[in-house]
Amino acid sequence: MTRESAGEPGADDGDSVVYDLASECTAADVEYDRPYLAEINGIVDYGVFVDLSDSISGLVHESVLDGTYAVGDELVVELETVRENGDMAFEPADVDDYTVESVDHDYALTGTDRLESNIGEQIHLEGEVVQVKQTGGPTIFHVTDEDGVVPCAAFEEAGVRAYPQVEVGDIVRVTGAPEYREGTVQIEVDGLSTLEGEDAEEARKRLEDALESRAQPHDVAPLIDWPAFEKLRPNLQEVAKLLRRTVLEGRPIRVRHHADGDGMCAAVPVQIALERFIAEVHEDEDAPRHLIKRLPAKAPFYEMEDATRDLNFALEDQEKHGQQLPLLLMLDNGSTAEDVPAYETLAHYDIPIAVVDHHHPDPEAVEDLLDAHVNPYLHDEDYRITTGMLCVELARMIYPELTDELRHIPAVAGLSDRSKADAMSDYLDLAAEEGYDEDRLQDVSEALDYAAFWLRYNSGDQLIQDLLHVDNGDEDRHRELVSFFADRAREEVDEQLDAAMPHLEHEDLDNGAHLYRIDVENYAHRFTYPAPGKTTGEIHDRKIEETGDPVITVGYGPDFAVLRSDGVRLDIPNMVTELEEEIPGGGVSGGGHLVVGSIKFVKGKREEVIDALVEKMEEAEIDEALSSAALIDD
Amino acid sequence: MTRESAGEPGADDGDSVVYDLASECTAADVEYDRPYLAEINGIVDYGVFVDLSDSISGLVHESVLDGTYAVGDELVVELETVRENGDMAFEPADVDDYTVESVDHDYALTGTDRLESNIGEQIHLEGEVVQVKQTGGPTIFHVTDEDGVVPCAAFEEAGVRAYPQVEVGDIVRVTGAPEYREGTVQIEVDGLSTLEGEDAEEARKRLEDALESRAQPHDVAPLIDWPAFEKLRPNLQEVAKLLRRTVLEGRPIRVRHHADGDGMCAAVPVQIALERFIAEVHEDEDAPRHLIKRLPAKAPFYEMEDATRDLNFALEDQEKHGQQLPLLLMLDNGSTAEDVPAYETLAHYDIPIAVVDHHHPDPEAVEDLLDAHVNPYLHDEDYRITTGMLCVELARMIYPELTDELRHIPAVAGLSDRSKADAMSDYLDLAAEEGYDEDRLQDVSEALDYAAFWLRYNSGDQLIQDLLHVDNGDEDRHRELVSFFADRAREEVDEQLDAAMPHLEHEDLDNGAHLYRIDVENYAHRFTYPAPGKTTGEIHDRKIEETGDPVITVGYGPDFAVLRSDGVRLDIPNMVTELEEEIPGGGVSGGGHLVVGSIKFVKGKREEVIDALVEKMEEAEIDEALSSAALIDD
Amino acid sequence: MTRESAGEPGADDGDSVVYDLASECTAADVEYDRPYLAEINGIVDYGVFVDLSDSISGLVHESVLDGTYAVGDELVVELETVRENGDMAFEPADVDDYTVESVDHDYALTGTDRLESNIGEQIHLEGEVVQVKQTGGPTIFHVTDEDGVVPCAAFEEAGVRAYPQVEVGDIVRVTGAPEYREGTVQIEVDGLSTLEGEDAEEARKRLEDALESRAQPHDVAPLIDWPAFEKLRPNLQEVAKLLRRTVLEGRPIRVRHHADGDGMCAAVPVQIALERFIAEVHEDEDAPRHLIKRLPAKAPFYEMEDATRDLNFALEDQEKHGQQLPLLLMLDNGSTAEDVPAYETLAHYDIPIAVVDHHHPDPEAVEDLLDAHVNPYLHDEDYRITTGMLCVELARMIYPELTDELRHIPAVAGLSDRSKADAMSDYLDLAAEEGYDEDRLQDVSEALDYAAFWLRYNSGDQLIQDLLHVDNGDEDRHRELVSFFADRAREEVDEQLDAAMPHLEHEDLDNGAHLYRIDVENYAHRFTYPAPGKTTGEIHDRKIEETGDPVITVGYGPDFAVLRSDGVRLDIPNMVTELEEEIPGGGVSGGGHLVVGSIKFVKGKREEVIDALVEKMEEAEIDEALSSAALIDD
Repeated sequence: MTRESAGEPGADDGDSVVYDLASECTAADVEYDRPYLAEINGIVDYGVFVDLSDSISGLVHESVLDGTYAVGDELVVELETVRENGDMAFEPADVDDYTVESVDHDYALTGTDRLESNIGEQIHLEGEVVQVKQTGGPTIFHVTDEDGVVPCAAFEEAGVRAYPQVEVGDIVRVTGAPEYREGTVQIEVDGLSTLEGEDAEEARKRLEDALESRAQPHDVAPLIDWPAFEKLRPNLQEVAKLLRRTVLEGRPIRVRHHADGDGMCAAVPVQIALERFIAEVHEDEDAPRHLIKRLPAKAPFYEMEDATRDLNFALEDQEKHGQQLPLLLMLDNGSTAEDVPAYETLAHYDIPIAVVDHHHPDPEAVEDLLDAHVNPYLHDEDYRITTGMLCVELARMIYPELTDELRHIPAVAGLSDRSKADAMSDYLDLAAEEGYDEDRLQDVSEALDYAAFWLRYNSGDQLIQDLLHVDNGDEDRHRELVSFFADRAREEVDEQLDAAMPHLEHEDLDNGAHLYRIDVENYAHRFTYPAPGKTTGEIHDRKIEETGDPVITVGYGPDFAVLRSDGVRLDIPNMVTELEEEIPGGGVSGGGHLVVGSIKFVKGKREEVIDALVEKMEEAEIDEALSSAALIDD
Repeated sequence: MTRESAGEPGADDGDSVVYDLASECTAADVEYDRPYLAEINGIVDYGVFVDLSDSISGLVHESVLDGTYAVGDELVVELETVRENGDMAFEPADVDDYTVESVDHDYALTGTDRLESNIGEQIHLEGEVVQVKQTGGPTIFHVTDEDGVVPCAAFEEAGVRAYPQVEVGDIVRVTGAPEYREGTVQIEVDGLSTLEGEDAEEARKRLEDALESRAQPHDVAPLIDWPAFEKLRPNLQEVAKLLRRTVLEGRPIRVRHHADGDGMCAAVPVQIALERFIAEVHEDEDAPRHLIKRLPAKAPFYEMEDATRDLNFALEDQEKHGQQLPLLLMLDNGSTAEDVPAYETLAHYDIPIAVVDHHHPDPEAVEDLLDAHVNPYLHDEDYRITTGMLCVELARMIYPELTDELRHIPAVAGLSDRSKADAMSDYLDLAAEEGYDEDRLQDVSEALDYAAFWLRYNSGDQLIQDLLHVDNGDEDRHRELVSFFADRAREEVDEQLDAAMPHLEHEDLDNGAHLYRIDVENYAHRFTYPAPGKTTGEIHDRKIEETGDPVITVGYGPDFAVLRSDGVRLDIPNMVTELEEEIPGGGVSGGGHLVVGSIKFVKGKREEVIDALVEKMEEAEIDEALSSAALIDD
Repeated sequence: MTRESAGEPGADDGDSVVYDLASECTAADVEYDRPYLAEINGIVDYGVFVDLSDSISGLVHESVLDGTYAVGDELVVELETVRENGDMAFEPADVDDYTVESVDHDYALTGTDRLESNIGEQIHLEGEVVQVKQTGGPTIFHVTDEDGVVPCAAFEEAGVRAYPQVEVGDIVRVTGAPEYREGTVQIEVDGLSTLEGEDAEEARKRLEDALESRAQPHDVAPLIDWPAFEKLRPNLQEVAKLLRRTVLEGRPIRVRHHADGDGMCAAVPVQIALERFIAEVHEDEDAPRHLIKRLPAKAPFYEMEDATRDLNFALEDQEKHGQQLPLLLMLDNGSTAEDVPAYETLAHYDIPIAVVDHHHPDPEAVEDLLDAHVNPYLHDEDYRITTGMLCVELARMIYPELTDELRHIPAVAGLSDRSKADAMSDYLDLAAEEGYDEDRLQDVSEALDYAAFWLRYNSGDQLIQDLLHVDNGDEDRHRELVSFFADRAREEVDEQLDAAMPHLEHEDLDNGAHLYRIDVENYAHRFTYPAPGKTTGEIHDRKIEETGDPVITVGYGPDFAVLRSDGVRLDIPNMVTELEEEIPGGGVSGGGHLVVGSIKFVKGKREEVIDALVEKMEEAEIDEALSSAALIDD
């Protein structure tokens, strides 16, 4: 029996090689059909325990042993089996003369970034299970390592759950061969074991470090210099990181956004950025389609009906496809107390929530329910920083290569919400460089609003992308479509106002403001574009221009009113609170910004509520600087 | 030529074996490439007819014969072919010396219960075709035998119907090998023939006997002793048998149920029981998903729109997937004359209908249209035996292993419909043993009602199962979700009543009852929870508690009113009939129970109708025992 | 070296054959591994250029040449490779003695009509790419040649676009083997090249000629002799050709039709004709399902919401399945100015539009937007030629084998729209020959209308086919279903009229006509059958019959009125125009035929609008011949 140092070939070429594992080696380094040098560290009735490294030990059963052994003896063994609990059994290896080769701990697993160059080869991979989908054939474990997520197909028996003890969240070591399968690289699993104890800890730490580092948002310079925005930037980076991390963890994302111009300027760039990042991270080419959904919402808050529906879909996807429950991303919506019931419904499930909004927030009401919350009001800024402006930067932090397609979007977002932000001129300049003058941007904004109205609950991805001109659309079509839709929108607004204006009631308030009231139920077309909120807004704008004076406009239906004011120091949320108390049985609720908002009441108390409201308005001070520039959420 | 008795090996080992079929053998016992002893029983121009057994005979064509033959001669033949009509052709077998082996009729087909142990082996199976689905590849015949249903894939040419003469309902003999295919055992068909005449009769009888016996509901002892329930039990067993049989026959089941607490306590247990039974019976693992659908219905009867939609889906499934038309199971709904038009629409198609309901039935109107009808009123009992109570027992008759998950459900059902049944205390005790005190049960009931409202037309399977805590849900989540939803429901009821109560009109009727009227269109929030029916009910309940006197409450909208009364001997169905006659052009219709119900009319006659209604109420006798405990169908 | 004339075998049997391409041969005639006779036509640094025919030339690289060559020399070459741009490279062929065989240009490609007889054989096919669908595995090119459309599967790497330079609209030559794949013949592509220059021109011309000839509608004799119809026939043939061509080009078709009796009698026959033609043309057996969709529309014009939704679906199908954008076929709808905004929305995309309608058209408004427009008014005929009558002939031009199933349909269409066409008696006779007397036809018409109401936005294919008794339905079920639905419809009309008639307001107009007004909002049931339009129509019909005098009936709701008149010379479109001007803020719009129509206004101006309308009606002349026979579009 000869021993030689590793690497030095034995004198006798016929010698076998026996492997000596370094002390830091783990179970992951042990392979079948290889002789390892082991040391006996215990003797029991039914066999001997051997150590192969600090963390690898196992039993050699007495039935496969002959002779006698003492603790400390060397023994050359081969792996016989690994039990489900990770325990290893060895058997004596049949070697005579051998040379010893040391083996270092194999940190160099084949990562998901190197699968394509190892098609058909057996490789090892360590990672966290992020989805377990039972198909009619194999069980598909989606495993994320430091570099990506790969589906691993394990076959026990058709339709039977392979490795039933392995669950989402487990750290596993997969042995198998990458193969193409319907356009996707997946690993055909030969073996899959859950790492336990220190091995798992270490792998988890390694993955966590990698995840943490890969989740880092890109450090992109904002499209324009804008001190006000800088205050929100760290917050936005957190959201970018949360979203990137969500993608890396294989969790689906459900985007709910306000179905208006600003909302779409916010949601579409983020959607595209996430789709591209998902495509980069996931080997499964259908992943972008399965892992992100964008859904427009008509209401200015997250309705119980939508939350119930979202939850229901999420639970079904979990049940049917073994998907994790989604992260909910609320855009241009979601900062207010009205969102709380819906959030609380989801809170009972593992559904993180992130909000980017520029509507007046109720931080106290929502903060505990959110995993991230970006809102200019939280930094002493206001709605003039629109959600679309924020989200273009958010999209760039997620996927900076998108930048060139997005330069004109903040200007559209700003015009849509009539932002009076200082930055608007820079954004307009930026858009102008891309060939969008203000008229064209205004057209895009009108066209978006018009399309959103008719799309109702459909996301209308292609159409909206054509209108926004992102994701490589056809330029000519974009231009024609935008101008056609914008023209239609204006024509239909004109028709609506032709019907409504003759019925406008005017009153000179004591405080010197004009009050205009319009009964939109009786004097405007119903169920068509523009809806009551926009109708009221358009009337208001015309009256401001016409009079040059402070103006309040109230558009009322049977059980609601929308309010807009310019040049008057209103406090609508406070007025609503007072009316709630002063009019018992009025069923008054509502809110909004200080100078624009909406109010609901029961039909039978309409007159009383509106009269009381007007009285309050009459008491308000004139302040010509105040403007209801931001669109009412119609 | 030697003949020896069966079983005794010939002296000469080179001897062939010739098989002598027993007289009871059928075509199913004949295999290709085997020599059989036959007797000539007829001679025609084109060949000779031979008998192999009492029921097996066939032609040997003259082209393959040489020599001359006489009736009664023996001839050794092999099967040449089986024509589509089952006729057999034989040819002389090329044997010299042979020994004879008798063959008994092979009753021992390989049943669907033994497929997994015969993977890859050729087996025979006899059964009835229950679905024929043409795929792009093979034709899939779903065949049920005594033990289950198995898909049998026959390939003629890609996308071409194999065995076009074989249809749903035929008795067939399938020869082929069971194989795993996408997680499911299916038989790869080598041969498939329709049994005719006596063979078919016999097989059909055998299958029918097996079906009959397997369809038998389990004889489970009711969860509690309750004499009133015993009267309905035989009826319920019939439904259980019908449903089990439907599953065994491979027919889909469509469940329509009232979308309230009791309706869901009825439908969900039956759904789960059927899903589990389907999984047991069907080899196809997708069968539970394809063969049962649960659909909530908002109206208190089966609407034409729903029936049209159901029929349309059923016809499409038949067209696309070769499925049989479904059985319709109506739960907590379906006993009244208002259901008749919808039933009659379905009556033109092969769609059996079963109803389990506890609303006041019109047996004369519906009986002819139903295949089964369970309703406590048909046995001199009443709504106090709720549909949920009945259906928990029904679910147990179908799949008794479910029992432990259902013990608390009847109590929820009872509280949801405010059942004053004697049995309620036993049900409450039973639930208490499972850890559900009355408050918690009440919460579950409120939570269900609230969730049903927001789910609208979605079945929301997972969410409802979490609320009901069935099918192995997470206990903590169940508790949190229930208390959150229950609290929300109560808050929203409070908000609604805050708006409504100040507008309540009170009148002391001559008969001593209080009459309360509320205009729910003008003095309650619309399109939100609680809906008008529940709003009226909540007001009514508060007034009963407050006054302790007989109370009638009328909640009216533009063209409807919901009525509740306690302590007054009303007969609402009769009042509706009278109003129909007394108010021409009132468009009055409606109904319900004696003391709770709803009424519709044309908008323009509202005042007249309600005044006339109040007049009738005024004439009603006081009877403090009468209670409108069961919820109005809001 | 011996040369012999083609066809004469060489003296030496060992001689090779060298092929001499005829001058008209194209690249398509060149095959690998075959020696061709070439002539050197140019010598460059890096090799020599050779001609094989007028259009085939290529390079022989110097690296494979030895010796020296002069222009005009003969050289025997083999094809080495064809580059992506179509350039060919040759190499010298290793032949000594050979005989020459001339090769004619192979026009005889294996067309899609001969694929099934060439399964597994390598074939060539030339055609135009009509769809490129990237799957997870191969790229599927749908290629149309002179005879049909076949999917061609090219595999580059799983999920990777094969032949990325090849796009929809390219003319390609496909070399490969037809194979069965999931029930469909597809070609497994060995090579695919884009034809360029003359080859492409020639092929395109050939395809175009073939397409033109195959698109020709069948020259079927109309079901009845009807001179008025003859005027429209050439127009209808154009539509038939356009539709057949659309199918041949693999473009999907989306049918939008008015959801009433006539609309369904129009759309269903065309749908079935197209489905059958698609099945004939396309090898892909799912093609009929994917390439035609029928969608009922409730409004009497193409609404923006529907257009937006259609566009959205079309863009998604293009994105997901590489489908071409569809052709839109409007039936019994689509001729008016109200359709323009929707058409203009689609006009920015490649979506041709064809209209067959019999409502009063605005040809100036729509003509520029349509690819085809059939309307009797364009030929001095009127609504009496119903769309159903036209479309039965259209269906027959597309697929004449359908004729026997359609003979009764024009009569149903005519009765549905109460056509007073001369031809009605012929159509009734034709139907009578098929066993449909007038009562039965009337029942079918009522049943269709009733079913359409409850199906709402579902096409309800199977149910409607049962009602119409087309596409091989069950006769008994058809009869039962029709009489049940017709009875239900009549009962529900009776119920509605029981409520409404007592509230009918009568006035004797100065011109001698009776005016009846009914408030359908307040005195008819809402949201149920019959809807306001039909309710008004039924009242009107009863009053005509009752009085025998000229009658005008106005059914009004909060913001609309439907108008019917008989015996009075109204001009409703003109009245609407006048009211628009006379009532500022009335929001008046609407139109229809001269004597039937509808009008919309804002709720608050209802009284004023209706009073002004009645005043105008009072001024109208009596003309007993005028009839509102055609149903209002209710």
